[in-house]
Amino acid sequence: MVVAGKPDVAEATSGAPDSTASVVVTFDRSPHAYRHWRLRTDGPVAWLEMDVDEQGGLVPGYELKLNSYDLGVDIELYDALQRLRFEHPEVRSVIVTSAKEKVFCSGANIRMLAASTHHWKVNFCKFTNETRNGMEDASEHSGLTFIAAVNGSCAGGGYEIALACDRILLIDDNSSAVALPEVPLLGVLPGTGGLTRVVDKRRVRRDLADLFATRSDGVKGKTAVDWRLVDEVVPRRDFRTVVERRALEAARDSSRPADTQGIELTPLEREVTEDGIAYRHVRADYDRPLGLVRITVRGPDHDAPADAAAIQRQGAGGWLLALTRELDDLILRLRTNEVELGTWLLRTDGDPARVLAHEQAVLRAAAEGDWLGNEILHYYKRTLKRLDVTSRSLVALIEPGSCFAGLLLELALACDLQYMLDGPPIEDPDSEERAQLFLSEANFGHFPMGNGLTRLQSRFYQEDDHLDWLRGETGQPLQPARARALGLVTDAPDDIDWENEVRLVLENRAALSPDALTGMEANHRFVGPETMETKIFGRLSAWQNWIFVRPNAAGPEGALRRYGTGQKAVYDRKRV
Amino acid sequence: MVVAGKPDVAEATSGAPDSTASVVVTFDRSPHAYRHWRLRTDGPVAWLEMDVDEQGGLVPGYELKLNSYDLGVDIELYDALQRLRFEHPEVRSVIVTSAKEKVFCSGANIRMLAASTHHWKVNFCKFTNETRNGMEDASEHSGLTFIAAVNGSCAGGGYEIALACDRILLIDDNSSAVALPEVPLLGVLPGTGGLTRVVDKRRVRRDLADLFATRSDGVKGKTAVDWRLVDEVVPRRDFRTVVERRALEAARDSSRPADTQGIELTPLEREVTEDGIAYRHVRADYDRPLGLVRITVRGPDHDAPADAAAIQRQGAGGWLLALTRELDDLILRLRTNEVELGTWLLRTDGDPARVLAHEQAVLRAAAEGDWLGNEILHYYKRTLKRLDVTSRSLVALIEPGSCFAGLLLELALACDLQYMLDGPPIEDPDSEERAQLFLSEANFGHFPMGNGLTRLQSRFYQEDDHLDWLRGETGQPLQPARARALGLVTDAPDDIDWENEVRLVLENRAALSPDALTGMEANHRFVGPETMETKIFGRLSAWQNWIFVRPNAAGPEGALRRYGTGQKAVYDRKRV
Repeated sequence: MVVAGKPDVAEATSGAPDSTASVVVTFDRSPHAYRHWRLRTDGPVAWLEMDVDEQGGLVPGYELKLNSYDLGVDIELYDALQRLRFEHPEVRSVIVTSAKEKVFCSGANIRMLAASTHHWKVNFCKFTNETRNGMEDASEHSGLTFIAAVNGSCAGGGYEIALACDRILLIDDNSSAVALPEVPLLGVLPGTGGLTRVVDKRRVRRDLADLFATRSDGVKGKTAVDWRLVDEVVPRRDFRTVVERRALEAARDSSRPADTQGIELTPLEREVTEDGIAYRHVRADYDRPLGLVRITVRGPDHDAPADAAAIQRQGAGGWLLALTRELDDLILRLRTNEVELGTWLLRTDGDPARVLAHEQAVLRAAAEGDWLGNEILHYYKRTLKRLDVTSRSLVALIEPGSCFAGLLLELALACDLQYMLDGPPIEDPDSEERAQLFLSEANFGHFPMGNGLTRLQSRFYQEDDHLDWLRGETGQPLQPARARALGLVTDAPDDIDWENEVRLVLENRAALSPDALTGMEANHRFVGPETMETKIFGRLSAWQNWIFVRPNAAGPEGALRRYGTGQKAVYDRKRV
Repeated sequence: MVVAGKPDVAEATSGAPDSTASVVVTFDRSPHAYRHWRLRTDGPVAWLEMDVDEQGGLVPGYELKLNSYDLGVDIELYDALQRLRFEHPEVRSVIVTSAKEKVFCSGANIRMLAASTHHWKVNFCKFTNETRNGMEDASEHSGLTFIAAVNGSCAGGGYEIALACDRILLIDDNSSAVALPEVPLLGVLPGTGGLTRVVDKRRVRRDLADLFATRSDGVKGKTAVDWRLVDEVVPRRDFRTVVERRALEAARDSSRPADTQGIELTPLEREVTEDGIAYRHVRADYDRPLGLVRITVRGPDHDAPADAAAIQRQGAGGWLLALTRELDDLILRLRTNEVELGTWLLRTDGDPARVLAHEQAVLRAAAEGDWLGNEILHYYKRTLKRLDVTSRSLVALIEPGSCFAGLLLELALACDLQYMLDGPPIEDPDSEERAQLFLSEANFGHFPMGNGLTRLQSRFYQEDDHLDWLRGETGQPLQPARARALGLVTDAPDDIDWENEVRLVLENRAALSPDALTGMEANHRFVGPETMETKIFGRLSAWQNWIFVRPNAAGPEGALRRYGTGQKAVYDRKRV
C-alpha cells in the first residue's frame, strides 16, 4: 500500500486519488493539530468553534466551502468531545459555534457525497450519527450542556449538529436561517438524525416539519421559535452576551463535580501491518480469503485500582479505559477501511477474576460519584453500542483461557452468535482447563443498548423469570453445559467437533449476501422498544440507504449528482 | 387501455404481457370465485385452505407452484378475512392450512418477484404486510383466533402467514419444516414481518433467530418447539384431530358474541374511467399533468341508524361501512395502478352534523357490545392506517361545505399538510358559508395509528395540556382562525390567496424527488413509540426496499435473479 498525504489523517493508496475507495482512514486527532475546529475552555465553559479548512478534505477532489464537512471534520469533532469528557471535567457547558462570518455550518459536503461510493456514504453517516448521539449521551450522563450558537446560516447537517445540542440560539440578523434542504435540493433525507430529532426531540408539529424539510431556504426569526426549530432568536448585538449567559446558567446547574482534574488521552500505540492491527490489549488479524477478522481482547495485565484516586492515577493507562479506546479505534478502522471483511470473530484472553476486579473498582468509583469512573463506564457503553450497529456478522468464540466475564461478556452478548468449546484447549488436549463464563452486576443494567434494554434483556425479551434465574448465577463460573442451558451460548461443541463446526459457521456466513446479512442483523439485534437512537439507525438510516442507491439521487441525472451543476435533476416520478 | 384476461382480476394492457408495469389490478373478490383459497365455515370454526392455482398468476410469466403466492393470491386472502369479520360473526377461530399434499406454502413466488419492477415489489410487500397485520387485528379486536395448521413444508412468506396466526401447529412427519430461506437463497429479507415477528412476537432468542434465518432447510420437530418457532408439533395421524381440538378450545374462549348473524359485503359499485373513479360516497379525479389525485369523500346522504339493529339492517349500505369499503378500495387501486400520481388531495363534502350523528350511532353500538359496530370502527381504523403508510403526499383541503368532523377529521389529520380556506367558497364570493372543523370523541382514542397513538397525540406529541385544551373544544364548530390557533391546520389562507397558495403547495410538491418524499413522510408520520407494526413498515420494509435495489439481489448476477437458474449468485462483498 502506497501511503500519500498526512499519515496521521488519511493514507491514500496511489492510483485513485479522487476516490474514497482506496483511502485508509485513521482516527487519531489532537486539539493542537485540528484543521477544522478550535477547542478552548474558559473555566466551566468550552467553546467549540467550527472553522473548516476548505483545502483540508480527507480525500482529494472537493473543497470544504462554507463550513461544510466530511468524515475528517467529524473525526475531529468526535475527538474534541472525548477530550471534553476526559481531559476537561471542569467544563460544564459547551458552546458549539462557527468561527466563520455569516455561516454556522452548511452541512455535509455535497461534492464529497456525490463522488463517494455507497458504502462510504453509509459509513460516513453512521459515524456522524454516533457522534451526534455521543453529544446527547454527554448531556444525559456527564452533566454537559451543549449550546448551539447559530451565528450564521445553518443548513442540513449543520442544523443536525444544532439538533444534537440541548439548546439552540439563532442569530436574528434578517438573513440567518436554519434549514433542512436535503429533500428539495439533493433528493435525499436529512439522515443524521434530522427528521427524527425534529419531531421526536423538539416535538415540531409534523405538518410544520414537512414544510420545513421541503423548503430550501429554511426558517428564521420568530417563526423558527414558534415552530420550535430553535429555542430563541437573539439580535446580533446581544448574541455573544446571551450565548455566554446561557452557557454560564447551564454550567451553574450542572451535575458535574467541582474541583476535578482531567486525565490526558495519550496517543494510542499500535502496530499496523497488511495483515492486522495490534494494540496493547486488543489485536486484529485479517483472514482475507475467508473474509474475516479475528479479534482478541486481552484481560488486565495489572492489578485493579484500589480506589477512585488510583483510577485517576492510572489515567489512560488503566486497563478498561485503554482497552475501550483501542476497541473503539479498531471498530472505526475496520468499518471504514476493511469493508470486505464481513465477519468479526471475537475472542478474549486473560484472567476472569482480574476482569471482574477491574470492573468492580470502576463500578464502585462511579457509584460513589467519581467522574472518571462514570466516564469510563459510559465510554465502554458507547463502544459496545458501536458494535451493535456495526454492519458485520459478529461471532464470539469462547475457549479455555478466555475471560468473558461481566463487562467482557457483553462483547459476546453483542455478537450474533456465540460458540463455546466444551473440552480442553484444541492445542493442548491433556489440559484440565475448560472455558467459563461469568455473569456480574455489570450485565444487569450498566451497559444498555440503544433500545434502552440490556443485552440480556434483549436476548431474553420479556422473560423476567429467566433474567431472575441468571441474576442468581452472578459470580459463578459457568461451564459450557450450564452456559448452554442458561441460553447464553448458541452451541457448545466438544473438542472433536469444535474446529469443524466453527469452520462451517464461518464458511456459511461468508457465502451469504452481505446486504441481506446487514438488513437481517439490523432487525434481529434490536428487539422490543425503540428510542430516538434506534429509530435513527434503523428507520431513518435504512430509508436513507435506500435513497442513496436510487437513480433519483445517485444516478447521473439524480439530484445529488446534479446539484450545483446548473442542471435540474430528472426524476422517475413513480412512488413506491 | 386494452383490457385482457379476466376483467375482475387484472386488466392487462397489451404490449407488455410479461411485465407488471402495465397491469391494472382490481381488488374485488368473492369466495365462490376464489382461484387460490377455499373458505368454509363449520359452526364456530372456519377453514381457510390455501390451494393456489399454478396457472392463476395475476400477471403472465410465472407459475404459482407449491402454493407460492403473488398479489392476486393475497387479495383473495384479504377478501376472506373481511368476509370472516363481516359475514361470519359466528366464527370464532380460523384454521389456516393448505389443501395441497406435503406443502403448506412456499412463500412469495420468486419468478414473480424477480421479474417485477421495484415499485411493484414494494407495493406487493406493503399489501401483504397489511393483510398479516389485519389478521392480528382480528385476533385482538374481533375475538378470532387463527390457528396455523402447518401440514407440510412452510417457507418464507408461508411461515410469515403462520407467524401472523395466534398459534402454530407443525406436522411431525420427518420432513415438514418451517423456514425463512430468503437470506441464504435469495439474498433478500423475510420482509413480510418475518424478522420482526420471530424476535418480537414469538421472542425467539436472537442467536437462534439468526441461525434460523441463515439456513435454507429450516427447522422441524422438537427443535422448532424449543426455539419457539412453532407452538407444538403433532404426528401426522393426530394432526387433524389436534388442530380441530385447538380450534374448538379457542372458539370456546372467544369474546365474540353468540347468536349473531352476518351482513353481506355486496359488490362495490363504481365507475372507472381514464380520468378517475367514482363510487357512491367517494370519488377520485386524476390530474396527470400535476401528478395528483383529487379525492372527495361525501358525508351521509341518509339519517343515522337509530340503534344496533338499524346498523345491522343497513348492512353494507350503511354510510360508514360503505364509505370505508370505497375508500379502502380506492387507496389500494391508486397505490397499485397510479404510481405516478404522487400527491393525493383530500376533500370532504356534506353535513358535519350528520357525520357526527352516524359516528355516534356506531360508537354507541360498539360500546354496548354490538359486534357489527365494533367491526365497522376497526375497519375504518385499518383504512386510516393504510393512508398512514401510503407513500404519497397527502394534503387536506378544508373548504366551506366540507364535513371534516370527528372520524372524517381523521382523514385530514392523516395528511401531511392541512389547508383551510378562511373565507367564502371560491365559486360563490357572496356566500355566508365558512369552513368548519369539528372535534369529537372519535378523535381521542378510537382510531389509533400503528404507533399506538391517536393522530392528535402524534400531532401534539407529549403535549398533554394541548390535548386537554382540544378535548374542551369537542363538538364546537371550529372556524379557520380558531383551527389554526389550535394547531389543527397548517395554514388558513383567505379567499384571495387560497388558489395561489394551494397551487404553489402542489407545484412545489410535484417538483421534489418521489423517493426523498417517501422517506421523509415515513419518518415524520410516526413520532414517539414504536410497535411491531411500525417496525415492520418502517425499519424492516426500509431495509428490504434497500436490498431490493441492490445488485446483490436484483442485479443480473444477484441472488433473486439467479435463483433457480442453477447459477450461483455473485456478490459484491463490501459491507455497508
